[in-house]
Amino acid sequence: MVVMAPHNSSQTPVTVLGLGLMGSALATALLKAGHPTTVWNRTKSKTGPLTAQGATPADTPAEAVAASPLTLVCLTTYDDVTELLHPHTTALAGRTLVNVTNGTPLQARKFASWAEEHGIPYIDGGIMAVPQMIATPAAYILYSGDQQAYETHRPTLAALGGTRWTGTDPGLAALYDLSLLTGMYGMVMGVAQSFALIRSQGIGAEEFAPLLTDWLNAMTNGLVPGTARAVDSGHHLTDVSSLAVNQAAFPNLLATFTDQGVRTELFDPMRQLLDRAIAEGHADDGLSRLVELLRT
Amino acid sequence: MVVMAPHNSSQTPVTVLGLGLMGSALATALLKAGHPTTVWNRTKSKTGPLTAQGATPADTPAEAVAASPLTLVCLTTYDDVTELLHPHTTALAGRTLVNVTNGTPLQARKFASWAEEHGIPYIDGGIMAVPQMIATPAAYILYSGDQQAYETHRPTLAALGGTRWTGTDPGLAALYDLSLLTGMYGMVMGVAQSFALIRSQGIGAEEFAPLLTDWLNAMTNGLVPGTARAVDSGHHLTDVSSLAVNQAAFPNLLATFTDQGVRTELFDPMRQLLDRAIAEGHADDGLSRLVELLRT
Repeated sequence: MVVMAPHNSSQTPVTVLGLGLMGSALATALLKAGHPTTVWNRTKSKTGPLTAQGATPADTPAEAVAASPLTLVCLTTYDDVTELLHPHTTALAGRTLVNVTNGTPLQARKFASWAEEHGIPYIDGGIMAVPQMIATPAAYILYSGDQQAYETHRPTLAALGGTRWTGTDPGLAALYDLSLLTGMYGMVMGVAQSFALIRSQGIGAEEFAPLLTDWLNAMTNGLVPGTARAVDSGHHLTDVSSLAVNQAAFPNLLATFTDQGVRTELFDPMRQLLDRAIAEGHADDGLSRLVELLRT
Repeated sequence: MVVMAPHNSSQTPVTVLGLGLMGSALATALLKAGHPTTVWNRTKSKTGPLTAQGATPADTPAEAVAASPLTLVCLTTYDDVTELLHPHTTALAGRTLVNVTNGTPLQARKFASWAEEHGIPYIDGGIMAVPQMIATPAAYILYSGDQQAYETHRPTLAALGGTRWTGTDPGLAALYDLSLLTGMYGMVMGVAQSFALIRSQGIGAEEFAPLLTDWLNAMTNGLVPGTARAVDSGHHLTDVSSLAVNQAAFPNLLATFTDQGVRTELFDPMRQLLDRAIAEGHADDGLSRLVELLRT
């Protein structure tokens, strides 16, 4: 008879600080992968479900950090992380800290400097998933910072989802993360506006959704690689869809929003950008030119 | 020995008015499918390449229309179409007119009324393709208006790409067309801003493009169906990505644009929309709530 051990002694112990939806999902994934997992949260009641799965609750952040060579921290802001960890530099020194709190490249770099001052090997992480996706094939985490610490702990981090190294500049994971979110928010604006427009005529969003999904996938796969080539090469001339053609089409689009009782606010700036592109002499260029025009 | 006939006499003759890039692509597709094709363009030199492929050039729009039971018109604006066809109602009466000129639902409905007054079976079309894609599996055309005329000529129209019937309201093809373009323009805004941000750090757009493409496809396929269900049902509460979480993340995103020398103009209205959503009590709702908030 085999009794399933809650922890596999060959697996690296890990500490998780911050047990919101995402922190709890990370701790659960580590437990499922057999890592001895120590957890801490400011509101102690949140440790309950994880303790039931085999996690060890710690009474203080210092005690939690001391339990493992690797600590993951997942709070709401970098200010929260600084406030939490600043008193515990002695406990952290020489142990790897992976911070997956959402933030900016500047915040990540500043925090990495603080970690370096205190002899803490630091990895910044950007999670490209919602908590429900953690440890599924669709989830991945971008990492940057201390590459040696990353290589050491990569097998452990792989329990959370795919691992993507972005570079030793600790701000890079946040930069890649925010660049991808930026693309997503544009898509979200387009989808919300598109559904508002089709529904203004009494057509169901669910009826329209398959057409929209296929179209957006086709346009993404069709536009992104060519736009990237144009941007990197600086050759913006196109024979497919010039800025002049798009500028000519845009007033019809905005007029239709208004005719149909849909607000134009999310799309007005695109019209202004197209107008500026034409005014600055880029009528025959493709949409890739807009990337240049977005620089300050 | 078999001599290939330029025209297959069993195929419906078709007339194409307007030989810009798109009109020429349509005429070429009809010729390739064996349709006797008559062409006319205001600037006569544009008929040359099509005549070389077997098209018959007409001297006047009336002569062109009289040559076929089906006429496709593809000009720049609906005003151009009205100006061109208004003198030729006698020639057009009883013949099917398919207008694939870009326009709004209102323009399509107004033009359809004019056609009906003059006894012209009218179909409005919205081409979901660039000219290079015509007659490839990726291209399709949305149709609305006179359903009987559509059913009669559908086999001919299929030579241009997929055919999608949207309804007897002649404005529907334009509405579907513009709703899909709206989704695409959101995606374009996101991609342009995303490339501007990643390149601000000296990272190549081509290096980043595969990550962006995979992410956008995953987000599109993940977000669109659930958003559609939420919008149609009116149940906007979410446990995945609340408006409060997105509102909290947005200032970091905009601060990063500014830190990295990227303009914020395309994304400022989304921040204002998220702020309004929270102010109006929708903190726990998902992004589907934005569709409601975009109504005037």
